[in-house]
Amino acid sequence: MAVDGEFFVGRVVRRDMDERSALRLLAADLPDAGDDAAVVDGLVVTTDMLHESTDFPAGTTRYTAGWRSVAASLSDVAAMGADATAAVAAYGAPSLEESELRDFVRGAREVCAAVGAEYVGGDLDTHEEFTVATTALGETDNPLLRSGATPGNVVCVTGALGRSAAALRAFEAGDCDRANDLFRFTPRVAAGVALRPYATAMMDSSDGLARSLHQIAEASDCGFAFEWDALPVHDAVTEYARDTDDERAMAAYFGEDFELVFTLPADAVDTARDALSIPITVVGQVTDEQIVANGDPVPDEGYTHADD
Amino acid sequence: MAVDGEFFVGRVVRRDMDERSALRLLAADLPDAGDDAAVVDGLVVTTDMLHESTDFPAGTTRYTAGWRSVAASLSDVAAMGADATAAVAAYGAPSLEESELRDFVRGAREVCAAVGAEYVGGDLDTHEEFTVATTALGETDNPLLRSGATPGNVVCVTGALGRSAAALRAFEAGDCDRANDLFRFTPRVAAGVALRPYATAMMDSSDGLARSLHQIAEASDCGFAFEWDALPVHDAVTEYARDTDDERAMAAYFGEDFELVFTLPADAVDTARDALSIPITVVGQVTDEQIVANGDPVPDEGYTHADD
Repeated sequence: MAVDGEFFVGRVVRRDMDERSALRLLAADLPDAGDDAAVVDGLVVTTDMLHESTDFPAGTTRYTAGWRSVAASLSDVAAMGADATAAVAAYGAPSLEESELRDFVRGAREVCAAVGAEYVGGDLDTHEEFTVATTALGETDNPLLRSGATPGNVVCVTGALGRSAAALRAFEAGDCDRANDLFRFTPRVAAGVALRPYATAMMDSSDGLARSLHQIAEASDCGFAFEWDALPVHDAVTEYARDTDDERAMAAYFGEDFELVFTLPADAVDTARDALSIPITVVGQVTDEQIVANGDPVPDEGYTHADD
Repeated sequence: MAVDGEFFVGRVVRRDMDERSALRLLAADLPDAGDDAAVVDGLVVTTDMLHESTDFPAGTTRYTAGWRSVAASLSDVAAMGADATAAVAAYGAPSLEESELRDFVRGAREVCAAVGAEYVGGDLDTHEEFTVATTALGETDNPLLRSGATPGNVVCVTGALGRSAAALRAFEAGDCDRANDLFRFTPRVAAGVALRPYATAMMDSSDGLARSLHQIAEASDCGFAFEWDALPVHDAVTEYARDTDDERAMAAYFGEDFELVFTLPADAVDTARDALSIPITVVGQVTDEQIVANGDPVPDEGYTHADD
């Protein structure tokens, strides 16, 4: 897989090696963890730690950092088909500048408001590297897991893929306003709730479509087949991609998109589409085994996140 | 105030200057924050970020780090008089060693189990400095705030003061087993719940008794008067303190003790004591104004935490 810039390569390679095995180890010990979020008595809980060197490229405003950090955790709540209720954020920085802190909190509050949740505060820490840890809470009596995909189902995604990969290109190109806009995605909480009656398995695309499909396949004991041309690719990807391979890498492998990847019976697609206020796209079919695109195997590559 | 070692001095001085004003700034924007934890529809939420250079001295085991990090957040739940339900922890370290991670999770799980909560997982992050962010959740329909102390009430503390200050001395002296034991305190969740019918104001002593009294005084518009000899001082403090002044600094100013500091009517003390399985000590009286010990003003000094 070709990814662009040390920023990507560093994180993809380093995290893949260590965190995946560490996470498998942890999941074995923790029965309530292991999906996008833990669910305890209907309460959905998920936490994420982000830091400057891998998550906030130069040019990321504190407003964007506040929005995006909290949004990443809210996306995990969305991926469970749960309502989002509240979020907190711990903010660590070398110095606590009033304007930066205000901007950060404004971003955190606004993204919570955008999904009907409340930002209820956090913690401050004098920390050598700008570091944010967010926790989002939600509610559901019937969480949507990764484990219900069945051959015969179709697999869909919300919105368009590659938005964060394009944002990184925009940062690299010095288009910081554009990049910050792209970085501030709206978590798919409303879509996740609306899909609850129809979807058989769901997660978010934060690890990239390819890895998401591998994870649903592993949890559901199934495979997937899709065509590259079926993927909904974000306009900004088309703009920044160097060629078709690059576009596919940005859309399917880079990840950090926070769209929902979900499966459902083919005959439920139209009803589900009518229930949502954002577009969904059928990208392929659930099969018995293997994950293939245009008939070729899709490697289990992407950005391994820590909440998998 | 005399505190020992750069480890302390650095954090006390640096945090005092920056975080307090930053936290005041944040509290103005966030009506649900500002006490030990936020409360939203009966759900108690609190988060903390800790990191190696200021929170985990050399010799702190990962088991202790997991226990103590989660315990710090559970203590904030306890301080609201709430039941603790669940906790998550995000773990950031330069490398993700299996044994360290297992030890960390074991500590986190055991402290949760000790207070009837469930450790439900977390996040992993490759991070230059060992950093932990914890979030604890609780439930209460009737949170105990800092704002209900009334002149005529008495002020009490649970357990004994100075345990963490003594732990730091033990780390400095190379008594690492002892230090780790002292560092793994049990959050006062059961006591907080049992005190709910009696206490008029409550918080934890994580900033030190002196600062806790100043914060309750500010929230309740009152004062306090206590005698130094009335303070319950941890045995380990007596052991490590150089002299009386040092002992008082360790017990009343250093903080990080995570005992409960609470006020209640004098005639409720015996009933409250009978309801608890741990000792409580009346240390002084609630007055109209000023905070004095043996008649002398008690400065608002200590360890300013980020959840104040």
